[in-house]
Amino acid sequence: MKTFVRRREDFTWDGVPLLAYKEEPGTHFRQVTRQVLSPDSADFPAELRYFEVAPGGHSTLERHQHVHMALIGRGAGHCLVGDEVFAVGALDAVMIPPLTWHQFRATGSEPLGFFCVVSRDRDRPRLPTEDDLKALGANPAVKDFIRV
Amino acid sequence: MKTFVRRREDFTWDGVPLLAYKEEPGTHFRQVTRQVLSPDSADFPAELRYFEVAPGGHSTLERHQHVHMALIGRGAGHCLVGDEVFAVGALDAVMIPPLTWHQFRATGSEPLGFFCVVSRDRDRPRLPTEDDLKALGANPAVKDFIRV
Repeated sequence: MKTFVRRREDFTWDGVPLLAYKEEPGTHFRQVTRQVLSPDSADFPAELRYFEVAPGGHSTLERHQHVHMALIGRGAGHCLVGDEVFAVGALDAVMIPPLTWHQFRATGSEPLGFFCVVSRDRDRPRLPTEDDLKALGANPAVKDFIRV
Repeated sequence: MKTFVRRREDFTWDGVPLLAYKEEPGTHFRQVTRQVLSPDSADFPAELRYFEVAPGGHSTLERHQHVHMALIGRGAGHCLVGDEVFAVGALDAVMIPPLTWHQFRATGSEPLGFFCVVSRDRDRPRLPTEDDLKALGANPAVKDFIRV
């Protein structure tokens, strides 16, 4: 288990692979990278990941049974949790309850970086169906915000 | 479950109690505050806490079976993990393996704030015995660093 992982100026971490998702037709995110900071250890029931959304980009609109706990790491943007949209900044905390739709967007000129703590043992995210999108769109603020 | 918790300028979080430990003779920390940011939810196997050590202060020198994952939140300082002392700064990550002695100190003129992710289900920290302190002190760098 590596004990010390230094953050570099550019918000990458020493020795941590930077995973850039491929953007293909049919993918549901835009300009997002991921770094896994926690050790792969059976002694630790959680994972700590860092996601960064480039200006104009967004994470996947999704929900799942497991709880997400996010901590904004850098920059600013907005996030949807359920039917509320929040303006977020560095070190604000966001709790995403079970089965709650959520999405992060880098709405300004800065990247939006956030840490996310999740259980190692978790269900797969689910994407919205056409019916889900219709239900979400009943709220005009949510309709304006979401990207799929 | 509260979904959004804003960080204030002074590194306290809206609606989160700031726990200041009482410093009594026989306590093993100095000038440390604690805030618990994660929800108290059976759906979430981890806790996210924010600790802040005032300049000159230190956390308890301790070890335990459960793994600590720390993320520096603000300021700078040093931490001991096992027999190594690291200079730490904002958003560096520190993993503390099982049964490994560790201590954080705000060694400069700034406070040292760090987030700590732990399992909800965890053993109690253990303090060093006289024999442990003797063993730790065999390494001069560790001997100089530790505060009890």
